[in-house]
Amino acid sequence: VQPGDADEVAAVVRACAEAGAPIVPQGGNTGLVGGGVPRGGEVLLSLRRLTVIEELDETAGQVTVGAGLTLEALQEHLRGSNLAFAVDHAARGAATLGGMVATNAGGVHVLRYGAMREQVAGLEAVLADGAVVRRLSGVLKDNAGYELPGLIVGSEGTLAIVTRARLRLVNRLPERVVALFGVDDTAGALELFRHLRRRVGSLEAVEIFYADGLELVCEHLRISPPFDRSHPVFVLVECAAAVNPLEELAAAADVELVRDVAAADDTARRADLWRYREGHAEAINSQGVPHKLDVSVPLSALPVFERDVRERVCALAPGARTILFGHLGDGNIHVNVLGLEPEDERVDEAVLRLAAAYGGSVSAEHGIGVAKRRWLSLTRSREEVAAMVAIKRALDPNGILNPGALLP
Amino acid sequence: VQPGDADEVAAVVRACAEAGAPIVPQGGNTGLVGGGVPRGGEVLLSLRRLTVIEELDETAGQVTVGAGLTLEALQEHLRGSNLAFAVDHAARGAATLGGMVATNAGGVHVLRYGAMREQVAGLEAVLADGAVVRRLSGVLKDNAGYELPGLIVGSEGTLAIVTRARLRLVNRLPERVVALFGVDDTAGALELFRHLRRRVGSLEAVEIFYADGLELVCEHLRISPPFDRSHPVFVLVECAAAVNPLEELAAAADVELVRDVAAADDTARRADLWRYREGHAEAINSQGVPHKLDVSVPLSALPVFERDVRERVCALAPGARTILFGHLGDGNIHVNVLGLEPEDERVDEAVLRLAAAYGGSVSAEHGIGVAKRRWLSLTRSREEVAAMVAIKRALDPNGILNPGALLP
Repeated sequence: VQPGDADEVAAVVRACAEAGAPIVPQGGNTGLVGGGVPRGGEVLLSLRRLTVIEELDETAGQVTVGAGLTLEALQEHLRGSNLAFAVDHAARGAATLGGMVATNAGGVHVLRYGAMREQVAGLEAVLADGAVVRRLSGVLKDNAGYELPGLIVGSEGTLAIVTRARLRLVNRLPERVVALFGVDDTAGALELFRHLRRRVGSLEAVEIFYADGLELVCEHLRISPPFDRSHPVFVLVECAAAVNPLEELAAAADVELVRDVAAADDTARRADLWRYREGHAEAINSQGVPHKLDVSVPLSALPVFERDVRERVCALAPGARTILFGHLGDGNIHVNVLGLEPEDERVDEAVLRLAAAYGGSVSAEHGIGVAKRRWLSLTRSREEVAAMVAIKRALDPNGILNPGALLP
Repeated sequence: VQPGDADEVAAVVRACAEAGAPIVPQGGNTGLVGGGVPRGGEVLLSLRRLTVIEELDETAGQVTVGAGLTLEALQEHLRGSNLAFAVDHAARGAATLGGMVATNAGGVHVLRYGAMREQVAGLEAVLADGAVVRRLSGVLKDNAGYELPGLIVGSEGTLAIVTRARLRLVNRLPERVVALFGVDDTAGALELFRHLRRRVGSLEAVEIFYADGLELVCEHLRISPPFDRSHPVFVLVECAAAVNPLEELAAAADVELVRDVAAADDTARRADLWRYREGHAEAINSQGVPHKLDVSVPLSALPVFERDVRERVCALAPGARTILFGHLGDGNIHVNVLGLEPEDERVDEAVLRLAAAYGGSVSAEHGIGVAKRRWLSLTRSREEVAAMVAIKRALDPNGILNPGALLP
């Protein structure tokens, strides 16, 4: 079904509740854990017709959008203004804002602005009984009871169906610099990040990748490597500010552990540098179907996690290739393993157990969905899962909202 | 009872659960809505002995603290480091961090850093059945199920008892500027804020007060007014950055609507300017016992709300005095009315209804507690309150955690 607004969504939900028919809500279908994919027999409820963009509130720096609007459509809408939306990622053309709310989408700017939860100043959502909750005035301070919007964000359609969101916008920062650093190891990358974070107020992204990934990207995209010589680890940094942050960054990055640096403040060369990082997913996919694990660990554990994960994969699957890249500043590593059988999940489990053992998460930004349900207990205690199940039963006693997703 | 750690708190909660004895959790007793005050016969559970400060994690920029630690003790602990805690308010000497988590405390820097919810990178808390949930590794991206910490923050002890918190820290910014502006009206103050927010990256606080409040403060503290002539409205701005932000602020604030300005970048004169704002509560209290209402409205509604609230109070209580001050950047106004009978709540209700009518909140930062329970439904729909009640019943089916607080 493709309802057109919250009232129509509520009517669908009421009808399904009466019939005891389970519902799978769907946005742009860009999720990576199967949360929006029907498992068999459910009513597929698409939010894509909810594409309203309400008037830009320049005083509050907020805008209210329909759940079905794509991220790219919002970016287009804001292009002429001096405001921007903080969350950005590669699936912008298809991913809907409602889906991004439901999954608490992250991306490359979490370091500076937080993930989707931090951008949500209000929500409209339909509960499992068809009741519509609406809090869209965008008031910034509101300590009147439990934080329902924050609970609905990231609940992957299991507690409510998001129909509209009031989103915070940030100042559009006109001056951008991208720099790529070559360093010796993950500890050096982390040390560089620590150093920059204390000294550079304009840090917007701090990404990491490795020599083997860079080599794949250069081969696949037929581009030259960034430096004459190679380095084991690369750190890509983006800064944005009202005045050109190049000098600030250059002064702060003048440290011994940096072996090579390339920096750009013009659009074309900035995109060239980003390509080394953004080309990873495509370059890896060109080599086969990788096992993809999206984990996070506490920052201080990153160097030892990187070492352990390579060793563990090597021990379990000697012929496999482990390509790592991700969001250094968030402790979020995308572990890609090539050369495994599709059904063989021993490596997956080992990597997720390792992340959990360091106090990390089995899902940094992709969510749990259907694919990671069996791993949830690695990263959440029995008591936490019991509390989640109790909340689910309280808000959806008949279990009609996205059954089979998120919870065991 | 005064347990010393989470396990002892859990033992107390289990004993109370078995005996069916309700519990009122208490921190520093600085709340303004009676949430930590026993109503009669409850077990008073003080968290003040939980004063641990764990090792500062400089890599993550985080620290784990016991619920009973005061804000001031944390500030003292961080004094030698280059990190600081973002939330600050006048009750720092007594307010505990656990209480601040439980009430989602706000203060003067919400504009830049958010309230307590945004500072919580992890929690340890005891649920109503004595189960302890612990998520203290401080991982920044963790999309594995419902956001329990965010739900517990601001739940005022009705869903769980906070025993430890993993707190985000921010860079200590060495260069500070405070400026006081005189403007003609609330619309001018709002326009000044809009203007500064787009141009000044270092804004840390934007406060508002009025001529009558300033006069009270000057009388009470026996200090001179800031300017030779008076102005209807005053805006106090604080900026903080790595390099002195005075020039940036001065350039941005060179607009016609500013009638007078005083600025300071040294500690003593900054404190002098802050005194005009911070002296309000004490100066008002010296005139009698005010009715205090802590409301927020959408920013664009502030000018009309200010006009309406004065008119409404005047119509209901012609002899009363209405003193307004608050956090302009958050749309958060503290409405103080002098000259009313203590029990006469007609003015309170009228002001809260007005805030709600503009889409605002009946409690911006103080919470609901016991005192504002009857007004919750002004600002939350029947559906929202029903969802809150369902969550409460799910996590505390016997209603032993802070009964009588927050929910109707």
